[in-house]
Amino acid sequence: MEYKFSDALASLKPSAIREILKNSGTSIPLSAGNPAPDAFPVSDLTEIIKKIMEEEPILALQYGITEGYAPLRESLSVLAKDRYRAKSDNDSVIITSGAQQIMSLMSQAFINEGDTVICEEPSFIGALNCFRANGARLRGVPVQKDGMDTDELEKALKEEKRAKFIYTIPNFQNPAGVTMSLEKREKIYNLAKEYGVIVLEDNPYGDTRTAGEEIDPIKSFDKDGTVVYAGSFSKIIAPGIRVGFTVAPKEIAAKLTVAKQTQDVHTPLLSQLLVYHWLKDYSIEEHVSKIKAIYKRKLNLLCDKLDELMSPYIEYEKPEGGLFVWVKLNDNIDMLQYCKKCSEAGVSVVPGTAFLTDDTAPCQYIRLNFSTPTDEGIVRGVELMKEVALTF
Amino acid sequence: MEYKFSDALASLKPSAIREILKNSGTSIPLSAGNPAPDAFPVSDLTEIIKKIMEEEPILALQYGITEGYAPLRESLSVLAKDRYRAKSDNDSVIITSGAQQIMSLMSQAFINEGDTVICEEPSFIGALNCFRANGARLRGVPVQKDGMDTDELEKALKEEKRAKFIYTIPNFQNPAGVTMSLEKREKIYNLAKEYGVIVLEDNPYGDTRTAGEEIDPIKSFDKDGTVVYAGSFSKIIAPGIRVGFTVAPKEIAAKLTVAKQTQDVHTPLLSQLLVYHWLKDYSIEEHVSKIKAIYKRKLNLLCDKLDELMSPYIEYEKPEGGLFVWVKLNDNIDMLQYCKKCSEAGVSVVPGTAFLTDDTAPCQYIRLNFSTPTDEGIVRGVELMKEVALTF
Repeated sequence: MEYKFSDALASLKPSAIREILKNSGTSIPLSAGNPAPDAFPVSDLTEIIKKIMEEEPILALQYGITEGYAPLRESLSVLAKDRYRAKSDNDSVIITSGAQQIMSLMSQAFINEGDTVICEEPSFIGALNCFRANGARLRGVPVQKDGMDTDELEKALKEEKRAKFIYTIPNFQNPAGVTMSLEKREKIYNLAKEYGVIVLEDNPYGDTRTAGEEIDPIKSFDKDGTVVYAGSFSKIIAPGIRVGFTVAPKEIAAKLTVAKQTQDVHTPLLSQLLVYHWLKDYSIEEHVSKIKAIYKRKLNLLCDKLDELMSPYIEYEKPEGGLFVWVKLNDNIDMLQYCKKCSEAGVSVVPGTAFLTDDTAPCQYIRLNFSTPTDEGIVRGVELMKEVALTF
Repeated sequence: MEYKFSDALASLKPSAIREILKNSGTSIPLSAGNPAPDAFPVSDLTEIIKKIMEEEPILALQYGITEGYAPLRESLSVLAKDRYRAKSDNDSVIITSGAQQIMSLMSQAFINEGDTVICEEPSFIGALNCFRANGARLRGVPVQKDGMDTDELEKALKEEKRAKFIYTIPNFQNPAGVTMSLEKREKIYNLAKEYGVIVLEDNPYGDTRTAGEEIDPIKSFDKDGTVVYAGSFSKIIAPGIRVGFTVAPKEIAAKLTVAKQTQDVHTPLLSQLLVYHWLKDYSIEEHVSKIKAIYKRKLNLLCDKLDELMSPYIEYEKPEGGLFVWVKLNDNIDMLQYCKKCSEAGVSVVPGTAFLTDDTAPCQYIRLNFSTPTDEGIVRGVELMKEVALTF
């Protein structure tokens, strides 16, 4: 039989990163985005899960309501307000199946075929592909050292009459690693408000800051329901449980709930209960300090090795957090060839083109991850990167 | 701020059933669709989960691949082929976040705004709303005692030039309770093939048969990639873990995987590992026998009570499985008023209109569930239903 796929999906390719992950086999995974396994609170979670199955197994196994387990929503309301400064009284919290689902729900709630999503250029491929899969056209706005270029954003807002939202990762942007200044956060909020376009603020890495000062989210400026905030437990607790949460203006939250009913009914209760009890019985502060120490060590190790072995061939800015370093190869190195040769040499890195709105555009960047590989893997990976660089 | 929601979602109302569930409070829930908690293999799952957290916690907590945990996919391939007769060598198995997600992925993969989904009339509201939320127009085909009216289906296939798939629940259809004959299953397969339209065969209740003989699925006829089969563990193991699986022609499975990447990256590993180990270490046959005994007892109790107390006011056919009885009220009873009064009297039932492609069409039916309420609840619920019927 011949299939007539939807226009949006017919043209969409599988995520380059997940495809690399799937086939990376024995390569050193500088391409991945997995949190470090030693950052998972395994013994806490083991205790909690035993308790859940002993004390409230039916709650954990039965259907739940779409918005999420009520006590978890309540505790996240407090956390979003007090810890993340990302909630007002006009907002609701909804539990989602990872923060990825927030991108999907927002697309379903807002995108008609041909509408525009304004995004940072480069940006997270998982979000870009989600917008594409829902029929959106992408309009990229360049990322500068202090975040999205707000002049270019204003230009885009003027030109894109069908813009539905602005997608941004203000903290330790994936893949560029940059952190948006407070001034730009306020500026983006004001522009969004002026042009009547939602801001979708994605903050998966907020708790991984290893240098510099905390900066309030764009959501902290929101007085009139312009910003939808996406939070995740993938980097704080663990990604395999697939728990994210959105702080959204109530009217939007209601639509996201309707969309979520149609996608997966609700997020698994066991995952939700794990997060609920962990937040209640353990110290997020203490655990986040531990995570930060791990990532600081691994980031420093990667940067030290890059400085030692790769400085003739690359340029990069050390990020203040997140899981990635965005590395520019010298002009004499063919970027795609370099990635291919790295893979053959036994280290996988992601070609920067994967993060562009047009993945055929010229690009000298590659993305390196330091959370997934072991310390030895980081060292050996950069050694292999140097061997490959020497062939150009 | 004023929001410009997508056309498809702007007009969609929250699922009437889930809204009733949410607000049913102390009512006797004849409206729900929850499996009976005593059907959950709690002690098996508790053992398994402890073992997972002791032996493979990182596997359970780390990111996984989108298609699902490979050993689970393999064991479901065997199960789909041998137990359900629902897989050929041209098909792939993908693990999904409940079977609901299969409806969502299929919609994303196939539906352009304005395309048609042909469905049974009445049908499962969760699926109908999903198709609507993805911009599909619904074309209903009446359900007869032996399943979808195939003459009407052929008429619909002739008229609907933009039909993308035919959605059907052949076993113990929700809400009508009817089971499709083998002849009609083959007929539908042949019609679908002839008109080049996919069949989306949803089988959430297959393992709840309490009377009659097993009938092979539509998928068992599939030689050329016309049928996508949706299976679920919600009624076999537990719904709160949100694990479903699809058996789909390889080319479609690849597109569903791309769509799933954009929705939730992957189904929680803990849920997938639970199903994997349960299938490996416990007997599905034995457990399904136990479930059937529970449902047989509860179905009989409900029908006995309806026959005893409600026969002057209603008509119904006893289903051979599933969780629901589809009940026709006498013409003198205003159906919506009846539902409202039942709710006030302390028993909640679902108005049949919730399951129609046009929920303003006239309808004398209500849907009753017997798996969620306790045995006492069933008895008391029907008593209250009678008290309300007396007021008409």
